[in-house]
Amino acid sequence: MKKINLDEKFDLFENYWSPRIIGELNGQYVKLAKLKGEMVWHTHEDEDEFFQVIKGRIVIHLKDQRITLNEGECFIVPKGVEHKPEAVEEAHVLLFEPKATAHTGTVNSEMTVEIEDQEWI
Amino acid sequence: MKKINLDEKFDLFENYWSPRIIGELNGQYVKLAKLKGEMVWHTHEDEDEFFQVIKGRIVIHLKDQRITLNEGECFIVPKGVEHKPEAVEEAHVLLFEPKATAHTGTVNSEMTVEIEDQEWI
Repeated sequence: MKKINLDEKFDLFENYWSPRIIGELNGQYVKLAKLKGEMVWHTHEDEDEFFQVIKGRIVIHLKDQRITLNEGECFIVPKGVEHKPEAVEEAHVLLFEPKATAHTGTVNSEMTVEIEDQEWI
Repeated sequence: MKKINLDEKFDLFENYWSPRIIGELNGQYVKLAKLKGEMVWHTHEDEDEFFQVIKGRIVIHLKDQRITLNEGECFIVPKGVEHKPEAVEEAHVLLFEPKATAHTGTVNSEMTVEIEDQEWI
């Protein structure tokens, strides 16, 4: 039972597209990720995914639209919806998703971090 | 599938201690609340509760400690842990908790907002 300071947590890692776990509740993880460049297109068949931009700007590409999120903006990608996050400059995001959520959903890519390799900070 | 701007959502309501729902995912709600003054002591027997301070400062009183949270800080109150949030000045928080979470847990108070009366914004 300790408080979590988001800026301090973001200082603890550098890698892009490699979410770190900062909290667990009700079968869900709270994660932080640094984004820069493009993720692969992927889909989570069974899990909705919440994005909150803490710093910078990201674009979530969907098949029929682009969602641009600035600091203080959030978006929920519903289960089954194919998406590709992108950040032109480095951006910091907070994620909420079920513990069982695979990093790149049903897609396997060089960018994929296996669930068991996701690190707590 | 629309983005959520937290500042715009906070502009939509005034009442303190009356969380509004802004999103739903995986059986959980994302809520916003404005806090000022003291909540009642209460416990959620079956739900962990995530607090993130978006603006201002809050104190979460626990039986054996006080957790002070400033902007950009978070805390998870584990299920079964009695707590009393307080904000000396107006503060804005984001909450993440199961849809079934009762506002004041097992306690009924004048401040209680029934689950079915919680409003989407």
